[in-house]
Amino acid sequence: MVNIDSDKQTHQVVIVGGGFAGLYAAKSLSKANVNVTLIDKRNFHLFQPLLYQVATGNLSPADISSPLRSVLSKNKNTQVLLGEVNDIDTTNQKVIVGNEEVPYDSLIVATGAKHSYFGKDNWENFAPGLKTVEDAIEMRRRIFMAFEAAEKETDAAKRQALLTFVIVGGGPTGVELAGAIAELATKTLKEDFRKINTSETKVLLLEGLDRVLPPFAPELSQVAFASLTALGVDVQTKTLVTNIENDLVTIKQGDETKTIAAKTVLWAAGVQASPMSKVLMARTGVESDRAGRVIVEPDLSIKGYPNIFVVGDLANFAHQNGKPLPGVAPVAMQEGEYVAKLIRKRLQGETIAPFKYIDMGSLAMIGQHAAVVDLGFMKLKGFFAWFVWLFIHIYFLIEFNNKLIVMIQWIWNYFTRNRGARLITGKETLASIPFDNNGHYATVKPQKPLNV
Amino acid sequence: MVNIDSDKQTHQVVIVGGGFAGLYAAKSLSKANVNVTLIDKRNFHLFQPLLYQVATGNLSPADISSPLRSVLSKNKNTQVLLGEVNDIDTTNQKVIVGNEEVPYDSLIVATGAKHSYFGKDNWENFAPGLKTVEDAIEMRRRIFMAFEAAEKETDAAKRQALLTFVIVGGGPTGVELAGAIAELATKTLKEDFRKINTSETKVLLLEGLDRVLPPFAPELSQVAFASLTALGVDVQTKTLVTNIENDLVTIKQGDETKTIAAKTVLWAAGVQASPMSKVLMARTGVESDRAGRVIVEPDLSIKGYPNIFVVGDLANFAHQNGKPLPGVAPVAMQEGEYVAKLIRKRLQGETIAPFKYIDMGSLAMIGQHAAVVDLGFMKLKGFFAWFVWLFIHIYFLIEFNNKLIVMIQWIWNYFTRNRGARLITGKETLASIPFDNNGHYATVKPQKPLNV
Repeated sequence: MVNIDSDKQTHQVVIVGGGFAGLYAAKSLSKANVNVTLIDKRNFHLFQPLLYQVATGNLSPADISSPLRSVLSKNKNTQVLLGEVNDIDTTNQKVIVGNEEVPYDSLIVATGAKHSYFGKDNWENFAPGLKTVEDAIEMRRRIFMAFEAAEKETDAAKRQALLTFVIVGGGPTGVELAGAIAELATKTLKEDFRKINTSETKVLLLEGLDRVLPPFAPELSQVAFASLTALGVDVQTKTLVTNIENDLVTIKQGDETKTIAAKTVLWAAGVQASPMSKVLMARTGVESDRAGRVIVEPDLSIKGYPNIFVVGDLANFAHQNGKPLPGVAPVAMQEGEYVAKLIRKRLQGETIAPFKYIDMGSLAMIGQHAAVVDLGFMKLKGFFAWFVWLFIHIYFLIEFNNKLIVMIQWIWNYFTRNRGARLITGKETLASIPFDNNGHYATVKPQKPLNV
Repeated sequence: MVNIDSDKQTHQVVIVGGGFAGLYAAKSLSKANVNVTLIDKRNFHLFQPLLYQVATGNLSPADISSPLRSVLSKNKNTQVLLGEVNDIDTTNQKVIVGNEEVPYDSLIVATGAKHSYFGKDNWENFAPGLKTVEDAIEMRRRIFMAFEAAEKETDAAKRQALLTFVIVGGGPTGVELAGAIAELATKTLKEDFRKINTSETKVLLLEGLDRVLPPFAPELSQVAFASLTALGVDVQTKTLVTNIENDLVTIKQGDETKTIAAKTVLWAAGVQASPMSKVLMARTGVESDRAGRVIVEPDLSIKGYPNIFVVGDLANFAHQNGKPLPGVAPVAMQEGEYVAKLIRKRLQGETIAPFKYIDMGSLAMIGQHAAVVDLGFMKLKGFFAWFVWLFIHIYFLIEFNNKLIVMIQWIWNYFTRNRGARLITGKETLASIPFDNNGHYATVKPQKPLNV
């Protein structure tokens, strides 16, 4: 059982989810006269914007993760619970964790989003997405295994398929993945293989709309396109993926249908709300948008439930300009902090103005040394943008330890292009493509049987 | 197929295994007029002496690993093959990898050792060992999950079992694990939990002989014992483990039999030779010792096969003082380099003196700030020993990148005792012990069913 010191006098805040929204809410409540319980199914906060760096062998998972307990250890009013919330009892104001209940006076739901394959869930086996540490390690395994298998492959067509990487989705994650893989192939791995020329690697970035980085200003999309092309990425816009299976990607461009033979397909396209969306809909009658994001009130609460708040990627907040706010870290942080402030003020009998997102801009890295940054009033590109990108990402890493390590990794990589974290770990660690028999070595001739 | 540029004029050296022995052999052959093929089933070299630091959440796997291709990329006479050797055809001088063959003129087998449970293989489920990155991540998961589960547990006996860590084996790995876990409990995690007092954690180190660190000088064993005891480790010598199952460890001390209730049991006791030992025995008739280590000739070759060498943990070399050399990194490095030199000289028609191990001493870390170092002519303990330990370990990390990161992690940890890499990842990431019903919260009362 969860024996929270549930001093009945003290206002109980339960936060579900330790991502940017939940963690920033918890941190903003550290001095408030409330008891905070943060529930997460993982024991660490993950800095998702840098997850592609793990997937491409540049950083280790721990470099972009912070144990939630350690981040919140100084907040004496806060406890962390490792667990998964299955349900909410709005009548008795309790969240259900396994077969136990945790009571709340205010509830903040911040469980985020996961990938969406637009109903084609079987694509996931062929085209993994990038949301968790395990996802990143699996992507890393596939990327580096493809080069290993290509090194052994003598059939030219099969080798080309092994050296073809298709990234579906031209948002920041897709752009960053494509740039990183292109640089991996042409720079980092250049000297590492003896049979293949890794510079012959094909990296395709597929985007349904007419430009990459659709949330950015069009001129920055152009810069991103030019930078990606310079790195050797084949950027295909207005391209719809209609099927993915058996190392073949089928695409539709206008009326034309094509197939691309590619062993490695990476998914950076749709997202959908986490399952808590359906729990909230069932228990409060709240509405959601097509992606399952919960439609929230101007103060981020749920209609009719002024003490239940939804923040971060799970929320659809469209009060500002009619368009829902994007599922990015700055929105989540500001929403989390806003709700924390609202709760503090409410306990003092005060009200605060509706939530207003202050857009600090968008940014994406292209390869190791270039980036695009859209600050609204100013657009940056190239080295200076890269520097700004770096600074902002390191600044927001939760723990100083991580800031230091990531900074050093970057300085190191800047000068060497080395990627030390390119381990093939987990389930399949041997190149899966068997040697075929066209080459110098004959197949094994039987010896006397070996009893080992 | 493996299309090695098998220039038939050039002497072909095949090295099986990219640990210390194999890698140092490959590096020593970089300038020789030979073609080298290094075959490993993993794509990275692992610095095993620091694996316990991964298991206890201090370092990331990539910090102590170096991609083999990257380490050897400058050696233009060397290629790396990701694959597992199943057999050796000594008649035709070929090693069998999957269903292909790789020819050799000289063969260096350096496949190392794995854990041994002395025939009690079912103990492995309850008491994982520490040889691979996956082992370390599993140990890390178990250690941190035990604290999470204890935080939720209200039954005092169960909670104590969750907070009891038994380490079997008092060699360097066992001593280092025990010290690290004790420090984790009493220092790193001290502020992180709200229900449990992590200082109540029990760490037991069990050793069959009459002192810990049996390979060291007795006075250093005493220092290690005192340092461990000061950290709160309960060191039990002359203790035999007779059974491990269902969170119970049965031990025998003299005629007395006891049981210890412990959720987390870690294995740091026996090792046995890797399966290549049996292949070599079957194919060459060579003998092995009880642990399966191959009995080698004074020049590290196999009797009757002057061009097949066994080096590192797989070899039993007892020519120096009648006792086999221990399975430690310095022995492996020196053996690998010796064989490389022998091959170079042999190609020039020269011979070299039998292998002679130059003992540089032994060392072990106890907790974060103390170590024991036995240099033979000098014995060190305490802070200075810690510093020497640190220097030597960082010095031998293969890549400069890793040296830098590990050094910074250590400086950071020295001042903060923080352990940022304590992620619970992999298979089971939620505390497995369900909440029980003795506490403040009642069990879930049925609501209307939820269709999610």
